[in-house]
Amino acid sequence: MKKVVNDVNQIVDEMIEGITSVHSNLLKRLPNTTVITRSDVPVKGKVGLVSGGGSGHEPAHAGYVGKGMLDAAVVGEVFTSPTPDQVMEAIKAVDSGAGVLLIIKNYTGDVMNFEMAKEMAELEGIQVEQVIVNDDVAVEDSTFTTGRRGIAGTVFVHKIAGAMAEKGASLAEVKEVAEKTIANVRSMGVALTSCTVPAAGKPSFILEDNEMEIGIGIHGEPGIKRIPLQKADQIAKTLLDNILGDKHFGNHVAVMINGLGATPEMELYIASRKVVQELNEKGINIHRTWVGEYMTSLEMAGFSITLLDLDDQLTELLDKECEALSFCN
Amino acid sequence: MKKVVNDVNQIVDEMIEGITSVHSNLLKRLPNTTVITRSDVPVKGKVGLVSGGGSGHEPAHAGYVGKGMLDAAVVGEVFTSPTPDQVMEAIKAVDSGAGVLLIIKNYTGDVMNFEMAKEMAELEGIQVEQVIVNDDVAVEDSTFTTGRRGIAGTVFVHKIAGAMAEKGASLAEVKEVAEKTIANVRSMGVALTSCTVPAAGKPSFILEDNEMEIGIGIHGEPGIKRIPLQKADQIAKTLLDNILGDKHFGNHVAVMINGLGATPEMELYIASRKVVQELNEKGINIHRTWVGEYMTSLEMAGFSITLLDLDDQLTELLDKECEALSFCN
Repeated sequence: MKKVVNDVNQIVDEMIEGITSVHSNLLKRLPNTTVITRSDVPVKGKVGLVSGGGSGHEPAHAGYVGKGMLDAAVVGEVFTSPTPDQVMEAIKAVDSGAGVLLIIKNYTGDVMNFEMAKEMAELEGIQVEQVIVNDDVAVEDSTFTTGRRGIAGTVFVHKIAGAMAEKGASLAEVKEVAEKTIANVRSMGVALTSCTVPAAGKPSFILEDNEMEIGIGIHGEPGIKRIPLQKADQIAKTLLDNILGDKHFGNHVAVMINGLGATPEMELYIASRKVVQELNEKGINIHRTWVGEYMTSLEMAGFSITLLDLDDQLTELLDKECEALSFCN
Repeated sequence: MKKVVNDVNQIVDEMIEGITSVHSNLLKRLPNTTVITRSDVPVKGKVGLVSGGGSGHEPAHAGYVGKGMLDAAVVGEVFTSPTPDQVMEAIKAVDSGAGVLLIIKNYTGDVMNFEMAKEMAELEGIQVEQVIVNDDVAVEDSTFTTGRRGIAGTVFVHKIAGAMAEKGASLAEVKEVAEKTIANVRSMGVALTSCTVPAAGKPSFILEDNEMEIGIGIHGEPGIKRIPLQKADQIAKTLLDNILGDKHFGNHVAVMINGLGATPEMELYIASRKVVQELNEKGINIHRTWVGEYMTSLEMAGFSITLLDLDDQLTELLDKECEALSFCN
């Protein structure tokens, strides 16, 4: 295993220290927790937004903490859900009395632990709601999931719910627009190589030299099929066809081409070129395309495509200014 | 070789098409060239800024084209200088009569071809100046270089010269501040793995399972030494000590922790943590730290550290708003 680390048992702690020491103007760590918040929480009168999950998916989710997006990200061990007490710390820190929305990616451990924290917070009189993101069209049920997995589309949920909360909307209103976003977003990914969880010290799975896996999960969970490596255009078309076949999209979408960790930007843009061509041919207008690393799987090579079906409300909220490090520019 | 590509001979063309079709609001491709410019060139009264080099270092340099940074990026084949005629096309497209500054990374091919383009442009009556970035403290002379190599510090030169040009400064003034930036910036990198040039189809060099190379170049050129893999803190300290030992730095610096392509953000932040600690201990104030991928080597694992010694002028120009995709947020 070749990684830039000190002690595998301190990786998450040292990463959090790195993030919050570098960005101390925007972010802070709640003392003795694995929670990263906006430096100004709780924000008076605003609904608090909390997300998080296992680490190894950076910049998710700390990169999405900031004005106009999340109030806090709860960081678990690599590919492991954060514990309920950590989520609870985040809820308490961000609640200003207007309530808190939890944005959870659909993995069994995350759902269980976030729900437990929700119940704990409610016992303390904090109003908490939750939404569960399940944008990955590849498979129903999976290694760590009942139902579909939550992947890169989660970032659009952060952005849109975040903009709605920043406007001063109520908890019910923020939850409603988060659920509309979830209903409108679909993703699918492909992996060319595996990744190595530091504590394991060896690759999570093996892909042969000429093999790729279509529909793989962001922890290496099985996808739809393993097939010989195809050309970029063919891969992009396969992912896009699966996404477009899963739901009727209108003629106005946002797009994300998300690198899984080790895919050069050069290759992401080659895939993007095909996605733009395909959507143009179908008469679907692209509002904007984000190309980069948004929801990674350590150093996995591969990428995912996400499409978000836009209406006027979602477009307005997506376009609002924000200050999170990894999305807002 | 596992890459998301179609035809290795079309990689650069398809990448440029991807970049300019995705970001058509900000960028355009000069027809029948490998030049990417701001969509609004030439900008009346403004000195034009042109950079570029071989591809495979994305987001360099197209990611730095935009208001307040570069006017054009000239894209060569992978790890290969663009030809003089392509640089000449860029010069002609961005010149509004105020002259053009070429920002060149110090590689023999780049210097030769940019200088040839400069001479061609001068024959057509365009005023052209050039600066050569040589921030890599690792080695004097190298596989493709006489003198020191230009690496990630080049991005700070783009930013500062770009802000100066945007203010309406003259060509001599823009060149002067670019040269001050070059005099004040130092970098050094480390690689844990090799990378594969698509047309070659196999890794450029081999690092054994427990080996890393200190001071490696962004094309895999030899560094200072190959040694067994060390802990993150030790690696960061070695790079930093070499940088700080090369020049006297004042007490106010900008920092860049640059991933070479396949290093998870988690690891970049673990290294960043040590850099922040070390600079704090030395009483050096960090104005701001950029952590991410700014000057890559395809899918090489590893990172570089860059320090820029700041004075009031450089600080003001570094902080100016800009609109390039990969630096301004």
